[in-house]
Amino acid sequence: MVDGGWRMSIESSQRGNHLRAEINEQPEALDRLTSVPSGILANVARRIERFAPRMVLIAARGTSDNAALYAKYLIEIELGLPVGLVSPSTTTVYEARPVRADVLFVAISQSGGSPDLLASLTDARQRGALTLSVTNSPNSALAMAAELHIDVMAGPERAVAATKSYTNELLALYLLVESLRGGDGRSARELSRLAAEAIELTTRAEGIAERYRFTQRLVTTGRGLAYPTALEAALKIMETSYISAQPFSGADLLHGPVAMIDPTLPVIAVQSSHRSAEALIPVIGHLTDLGADIITVGSSPTASLRTPAGVPETLAPIIDVIPLQLLALHTSLQRGLDPDAPRGLLKVTQTR
Amino acid sequence: MVDGGWRMSIESSQRGNHLRAEINEQPEALDRLTSVPSGILANVARRIERFAPRMVLIAARGTSDNAALYAKYLIEIELGLPVGLVSPSTTTVYEARPVRADVLFVAISQSGGSPDLLASLTDARQRGALTLSVTNSPNSALAMAAELHIDVMAGPERAVAATKSYTNELLALYLLVESLRGGDGRSARELSRLAAEAIELTTRAEGIAERYRFTQRLVTTGRGLAYPTALEAALKIMETSYISAQPFSGADLLHGPVAMIDPTLPVIAVQSSHRSAEALIPVIGHLTDLGADIITVGSSPTASLRTPAGVPETLAPIIDVIPLQLLALHTSLQRGLDPDAPRGLLKVTQTR
Repeated sequence: MVDGGWRMSIESSQRGNHLRAEINEQPEALDRLTSVPSGILANVARRIERFAPRMVLIAARGTSDNAALYAKYLIEIELGLPVGLVSPSTTTVYEARPVRADVLFVAISQSGGSPDLLASLTDARQRGALTLSVTNSPNSALAMAAELHIDVMAGPERAVAATKSYTNELLALYLLVESLRGGDGRSARELSRLAAEAIELTTRAEGIAERYRFTQRLVTTGRGLAYPTALEAALKIMETSYISAQPFSGADLLHGPVAMIDPTLPVIAVQSSHRSAEALIPVIGHLTDLGADIITVGSSPTASLRTPAGVPETLAPIIDVIPLQLLALHTSLQRGLDPDAPRGLLKVTQTR
Repeated sequence: MVDGGWRMSIESSQRGNHLRAEINEQPEALDRLTSVPSGILANVARRIERFAPRMVLIAARGTSDNAALYAKYLIEIELGLPVGLVSPSTTTVYEARPVRADVLFVAISQSGGSPDLLASLTDARQRGALTLSVTNSPNSALAMAAELHIDVMAGPERAVAATKSYTNELLALYLLVESLRGGDGRSARELSRLAAEAIELTTRAEGIAERYRFTQRLVTTGRGLAYPTALEAALKIMETSYISAQPFSGADLLHGPVAMIDPTLPVIAVQSSHRSAEALIPVIGHLTDLGADIITVGSSPTASLRTPAGVPETLAPIIDVIPLQLLALHTSLQRGLDPDAPRGLLKVTQTR
C-alpha cells in the first residue's frame, strides 16, 4: 500500500516536532529570562526580605514538583532556611491548615491552572503567609491569586511533556535565590550558550535511545542537586516512552530498591563533577559490582552524555536535564510513539 | 536427582520464614506498644509542648522514610504544624544548616545506626533544635544522641525487609501525636486484634501473588494518608520480588506517569473507606477507562484485599499495609526467591 506508506512517513516526520522544537528553544528561553532587568526580581526579593520568613513551603505537581525539589535544595543550601514540600491534599482532602503567618508559600505551575494549587495558595494567603507564584502564565488564576508573581517567560509550550518551562522555572528560582543573596544574576549569563552546547549531544542521545528501544523498565539516580534531574528524566521517559522509569536518590537506592538491580535493568546516573557526583561514586561502584548497565550524564570527563564543563553545581540541573530530554524524545520516536501527545494526558491536569 | 530435590524442598520450606514470622508477630508487637504506660509517651509530649516548636523536620531512610511521610500527614492534619522531610545530604554532602532553634527535629530508624541520620540529628541539636529519635534500638547511637527517644518495641527484626518495625514506628508516631492532642492512646487499643484479622488475608494475598508471578513492573497508588502505604508496598515488592514497583500519589499519577498505564501494567490502589479513598475514586475511574488491571486494598466493601472495617483513617495505614506485606512475601516465594535475604542488601545500610 503505497498510499498508506506515504501517509505513515509524513506522520512519522511530524511526530515529536513540538517537543523537539521546545527542547531546542531552551537557549533562547533562558536568554530571555537572564536579560530581564535584575530590578524586577530584586523587587520580589526585597518583599521577601522585609517579610523575613522563618520557613518556606512549596506546592507543585508533576514537572514543576521537580523544580520545587531543586528550589528546596537551593534555599536550604544557599539561604539556610528550612523548606517543606506541601502535599496539596493536606488542604484539599483533609482541610488541614498547617501554614503559619511566618511562612513564605510558593506555588510553581507552568499553566497556573491547577485547582488544588490555587486552593492551597489562597488558603496560605488567608492565614497570613507571604505568597509567591512562579508560572509560565502571568494571566493565570494562580498568578493573580498570589501577592508576588514571577513569570518564567518560557513562551507558549505546546508539547504535553514540559521542557523549556522546566528549565526556565529552575532559572527563575535560581535568580530569585541569587537576588536574596545580594547577587545580580551575572553567574547565569553563560547558561544560554551552555544549553546550546548541551543540545549538540542529540546524536549521542539518539544512540543511547536505540539501546533502550526494548526495555520495559529503567532506573535513574542522582544525589543532592542532581536528584531533581533524575526525577525529571524519569518523568519525561515515562510520559513519552511508557517505560517504567524509577528515580532514586543514590542513598535511597541502597536502602532496599538496589535488590532489583541486575544486568537487564538499565541505570542512568546524573553525575556532574561536583559534590553530588562525589557522593554518588560509592553508589555507582556498588551498581557496577552488580553488573548493572550504567549511562552517566554530567560534566565529568568520563560521562556517557558529557555536558559542558564549568557550570556551577547550583546551575548544573538546568544543563544536565537537556540530554535527558533528548533521550526521552528519541526513545519515544524509536518505539514508534508520538512524544508530543502522550496517551491519556492533557496539557493542564485538573486534580483536587 | 533425589538428593538435590530433597535439599531443594527443605530450602524452599525455609525461604521467607523470618519475614513470615515477623509479619505474623505484628499483633503482638502492636499490643506491646499500646500496653506501655501512657505516662512514658506523655513525658515526651510534655517536653515537646514546653519547647513549642514552630515546625517539625523529619529525617529517615527507606522504610522509615515512609513512616516519616505518615508522620508528616498526621502532624499537619492533627496538629496543624508544618512538617518538612529532610534530605540528610543537605547536611552531609553540602554542609548546609537549614535547622533553626524553633524546630523539632525527628530521626526515625529501625537500627538507629545510619551515619547520615546521626550526623543530621547531632547537627540539629547543636543548633538548638529539640531532637527526638524513634528507633527499634534503644541502645543505638541515634537513640543516645537525641534529647528525647521513643523505643518502638517491635523486638529484634531478622528479615532484611522491615515489617513489624514499620507498623510499630507508625503506632509510636500515632501515640505521640495523640498524646500531644491530650489523648491517652485508647483509640489504638483495638489495633492488635485488627492486625490479626488483616493477617487472615494471607490466602487471598497468595492468590494475587500468583497473578503477579511474571510481571516485571507494577504501580501502586494512594492519596493522603494512604500514600505512605502505597510507597511501603512498592518498597517491599521491590526488595523481595525485584519487580519495578512504582508508587504514586493519585494526583501525581495523573500528572504524566498515567501515560504508561495499559492492561499489561498491574495497579494496586490503597483505598480505605475514608477521605483519602474518596479522593482516589476519580483516579481509579480514569485507570479503569484505560483498561488497567486494578487490585484495591482497604476497608471498602468492594476491595480485593478487604481489611477490617471500623479503623479510624489515621490508624488505617497500620492495618492496610499488612496484606501488602503478605503480597510481597508470596510474590517473592512464587518467583523462586528468598524474601528473607534480598540480593545485595544488608539489614543496616550505611550511607552518608
